Amino acid sequence: MTQFITDAEVAARLDPATAVRAIRDALLAAYRGRLVAPPRVAAPLAGGRLVLTAGQLTGEWYGFRSYDTFGHAEGEQVVALHEAGTGRVRAIAVGEEIGSRRTGALGGVAVDVLARPDAATLGVIGAGGQAWAQVWAIAAVRRLREVTVFCRTPAGREKFAARVRAELGIPARPVSTAPAAVRDRDIVVLATTSPTPVISAADLSPGSHLNTVGHKQVGRAEFGPDLLDRADLLVTDSLTQAGAYDPPMLATVGAYAGRLRGLGAVLAGALPGRTTADQVTVFCAVGLAGSEAFLLDRLTRSGADG
Amino acid sequence: MTQFITDAEVAARLDPATAVRAIRDALLAAYRGRLVAPPRVAAPLAGGRLVLTAGQLTGEWYGFRSYDTFGHAEGEQVVALHEAGTGRVRAIAVGEEIGSRRTGALGGVAVDVLARPDAATLGVIGAGGQAWAQVWAIAAVRRLREVTVFCRTPAGREKFAARVRAELGIPARPVSTAPAAVRDRDIVVLATTSPTPVISAADLSPGSHLNTVGHKQVGRAEFGPDLLDRADLLVTDSLTQAGAYDPPMLATVGAYAGRLRGLGAVLAGALPGRTTADQVTVFCAVGLAGSEAFLLDRLTRSGADG
Repeated sequence: MTQFITDAEVAARLDPATAVRAIRDALLAAYRGRLVAPPRVAAPLAGGRLVLTAGQLTGEWYGFRSYDTFGHAEGEQVVALHEAGTGRVRAIAVGEEIGSRRTGALGGVAVDVLARPDAATLGVIGAGGQAWAQVWAIAAVRRLREVTVFCRTPAGREKFAARVRAELGIPARPVSTAPAAVRDRDIVVLATTSPTPVISAADLSPGSHLNTVGHKQVGRAEFGPDLLDRADLLVTDSLTQAGAYDPPMLATVGAYAGRLRGLGAVLAGALPGRTTADQVTVFCAVGLAGSEAFLLDRLTRSGADG
Repeated sequence: MTQFITDAEVAARLDPATAVRAIRDALLAAYRGRLVAPPRVAAPLAGGRLVLTAGQLTGEWYGFRSYDTFGHAEGEQVVALHEAGTGRVRAIAVGEEIGSRRTGALGGVAVDVLARPDAATLGVIGAGGQAWAQVWAIAAVRRLREVTVFCRTPAGREKFAARVRAELGIPARPVSTAPAAVRDRDIVVLATTSPTPVISAADLSPGSHLNTVGHKQVGRAEFGPDLLDRADLLVTDSLTQAGAYDPPMLATVGAYAGRLRGLGAVLAGALPGRTTADQVTVFCAVGLAGSEAFLLDRLTRSGADG
C-alpha cells in the first residue's frame, strides 16, 4: 500500500541530520555509479513546462520528482518512489518540502565538506523555504553562533530571524542590506529568486564558504562572475546536470568549466577540497537527480526518524 | 488537500459511460486545441525508462501520467492533477486503473464513432486488464449480444469470460484459437503483449470494426500489414503521438501515413468516418497525452459518479 506523505509529515518526521546523511549517501552513490541520475526531461505546456527528474538506486528503487515552471507561489511538486523488485509505488510525497529539504541537505553536505571546521557564523540572502532549508541543514553540520539574514521586505527578514531563534535556538538578526548579511561571515547562503547579483565578491571574507541555490545561469544569476573569480574552489552536486542548462550555467562557461568539481568526488576523497583556512569555496547547487527519491526512501523505510 | 485515489476507488467510482464521455470530451478538446498534449518524454534508467506523458486543459488544470518500461507484472503508474490557478495537486492516483480505463474509454469512443450502429458481437484477443477495460467501455456504447475471448491459457480465458458474464451481464464464452474469437464478430479487440500478429485480415468479417491496444510498431506488432491493407478507414487518437514512435508505428509508414485520421477530427465531423455498412474500420490506440488527467479530473471534480 502506497504511503502518502504531506509537507506537514515531512517537516515533522525528517530531522536535518538524517537528511544530510541521506544526501551524503546519495552523492557517494551517484559518484560510484550506483545511483543512476539522468538529466531532467521536460514536456512543454502552454505558459510553462512540466519537468521530470528521475533516479534509480540499482536493485533497490527508482523514482522521480516532478515540478513545473509556471511560477505559482504555492505550487506543489510530486515525489514518487517505486520498489525495484515489483514496480509498486511505495511512497508519494506532495508539496515542496522534500524538494527544499533535499536542496537544504545538499547545502549541508557542501558546508560539512568545504567550510572551515570552525565556521560558526552564517549570512543568508533570501527568506523563503529554500533559505530556511539551508539554515536547517547547515545547523546540523556546524555549531552556529549567529545567523544574519537579508531579504527585500523588513517583515520577511524579521520573521525568518525569529524562526531561526525559535526553531533552531540560534541567535539570529535581520539586517537591512545584502552586504551587511554576508560580511565577516564564515558561511554564506544565496537563496533568492533574483536574476541579478545580490552581493559582490568584495563582500565575502577570506576563508568563507558560499552556497548558491537560486538562479545561476549566464545572464540570469544571483551572483556575478566576480564571485567565481574570487573562489579558490568551485563545486557542484552534479556535473552532468550543471552541463545541461540552457542558457549555460555561469560556472560551466570559459575557464570556470575546467575548475568545476563534483561534490561526490570530493566526498569520496578522489579530488581535494579546501586545503587552507583562507580559501574561498563556492558550491553551486543544481539538485542531483534521484536525490529527492533517495530522501523519500530514507523517510519511509525505517520509521519516524528516517 | 490532495485526494489520493487507489485502483479500488477508481474501479468503484468510475462508471464506463462517464469514462467514455470524459474521453470523448478530451479528444474534442485536443482537436480544438484546448487540451495541450505534447509527445511523451522519457528519462533513461538502467534496464528501462521512466516515461512522462503530460497534458493541460487551458485555464483549468495540468497534469501527467508516469509509467515505466521495466515490465513488472504488478508495476504501478502515477497520475497527478494540478489546479491551473494555484499549481496545487488536487488529486493523485496510484495504480494502473486510470491508465487502462482511459485506454478502454478511447476504445469505447472509437467503437461508438466507427462501428456499425447495430454491432452486437465482440471478439477479444487478450485477457488482461487492458482487454477488460475495452469490453467494459464498449459495453457502454453498444448493446452486446455475445463476447468471445481467446488468450494463451485456458484458465485465463475462462476467467475473463466468467467476469464478463458476472460484472457486465453479457453472454461470454472462451474459445481455443485466436481466429475463432474474432470470426463473424462485429467488433474485434486486440489487447495482447504479442510482438507478432495474432490474427490475419482474412479472419475479419466485412463491416467489422477493430481496436488495437497492444504493440503496433514496425517489426513488433500484434497485427500485420494485411490488416491495414484490409481496412477502409484507419484512425488513431493522436496523430502527434502516432508519429513519434521509434521504430515507427506500422500505420504511419508508406501509404498508410496518408490514410491515418485523427479520432477527434472524425468526432468533430471535420473528417468522415464509416460511410457504408460493409467497410472495415481500424482504430490504433496510442494513448492521447493528457487524457489520463482528463479522466482523473472528472473522477475527482463532481463526486462519486465523476
